Amino acid sequence: MSATPARYAPTPRTTPVRNADRAGYDRALVHAVLDAEYLCHVGFVADGAPVVLPTLYARAEDRLYLHGSSGARLMRIAREGGVDVCVTVTCLDGLVLARSAMHHSANYRSVVAHGTAHRVADEREARGALDRILDHVVAGRAADVRPPSAKELAATGVLRLDLAEVSAKVRSGGVNDEPQDRDLPHWAGVLPVRRTVGAPEPDPELSDGVALPAYLEPYRAG
Amino acid sequence: MSATPARYAPTPRTTPVRNADRAGYDRALVHAVLDAEYLCHVGFVADGAPVVLPTLYARAEDRLYLHGSSGARLMRIAREGGVDVCVTVTCLDGLVLARSAMHHSANYRSVVAHGTAHRVADEREARGALDRILDHVVAGRAADVRPPSAKELAATGVLRLDLAEVSAKVRSGGVNDEPQDRDLPHWAGVLPVRRTVGAPEPDPELSDGVALPAYLEPYRAG
Repeated sequence: MSATPARYAPTPRTTPVRNADRAGYDRALVHAVLDAEYLCHVGFVADGAPVVLPTLYARAEDRLYLHGSSGARLMRIAREGGVDVCVTVTCLDGLVLARSAMHHSANYRSVVAHGTAHRVADEREARGALDRILDHVVAGRAADVRPPSAKELAATGVLRLDLAEVSAKVRSGGVNDEPQDRDLPHWAGVLPVRRTVGAPEPDPELSDGVALPAYLEPYRAG
Repeated sequence: MSATPARYAPTPRTTPVRNADRAGYDRALVHAVLDAEYLCHVGFVADGAPVVLPTLYARAEDRLYLHGSSGARLMRIAREGGVDVCVTVTCLDGLVLARSAMHHSANYRSVVAHGTAHRVADEREARGALDRILDHVVAGRAADVRPPSAKELAATGVLRLDLAEVSAKVRSGGVNDEPQDRDLPHWAGVLPVRRTVGAPEPDPELSDGVALPAYLEPYRAG
């Protein structure tokens, strides 16, 4: 959950960035935002109506992976030739309080990825995707768990979305009031928003002698 | 951004809660989640494809209000008799590291609201909704800004969604491994996730004598 260069970009305005041409900078920004968050919001259409659900995810190069119960609606729809999705990831960085009501805003970084997500049929790719999702939660975790059994794998749907139609948007910096509002007697500024991961809370039933692994040490300070 | 009772519920499993009957408990949970977050993710269908965008919002009784540029796609679609939306709000509370890969999870509270959102035509309701959105960001803010001008109001679309088809989902508590996995030598537990709003950063061009208002004092400690 480290800050990305985008967060400190000097642009006070939102910056839509199309990734269609895969320009180096855009790609780096898109990847940085995707790597900085834990949850995405995946949108799809079911019976003609939009559905938006939060879920864990992971990025591998220019692919996104999602997973869920193979019986879940999203996974069932995907079975028939894929499912059109919009996957959105948003990092909230600040609350922008302007002197005027309409210039209030939020500092944020977001990525919106459109496309057809497909069920991953290949067992090796599916296992790799699930490992990625674990390592996205905590780097190093996938190597330190009991891996999925064949039965668990069969009960799990893995979706793959190639990052082809992607845009990133960044709003950073300070207040952007109209010139004629700048002398108004209202306080203006930014409330920075941060997310922190606190100190690990061990399972009360942890076996004797199981120490905090090295990859969790950085979280110990809370 | 205070914790809700739901966060400390003892249920280790997700708890889907339908609000259709407006039972007192469900309603309180739905409201608590909606009041705890800053951003929602609104999903709609444009040209047959799902779109999911992050945006500020506010709740007023059993209504949600969203706003945006009146030229934005969502607002344009809404003009013709409303727009079918799915508004999802998610608070991430923790990362759950189980001994087995497939029991990894997240602690979270989420609300998913479906329905047809309508453009607010009444100026008084629109102004009230924009005030609510400001006060949702920081309680007390709406009374301490230059209000929207008629021109700004004309350029702004306000959407109203009645909370009729709403569900809340809560995952809280600890690790939920299979009994046969409990003696495995992998560390298991929860990494708590918190979001904090830091100390106010004043606009460098703040007029002389403009002090931090009382409603921002609680944020001063960061």
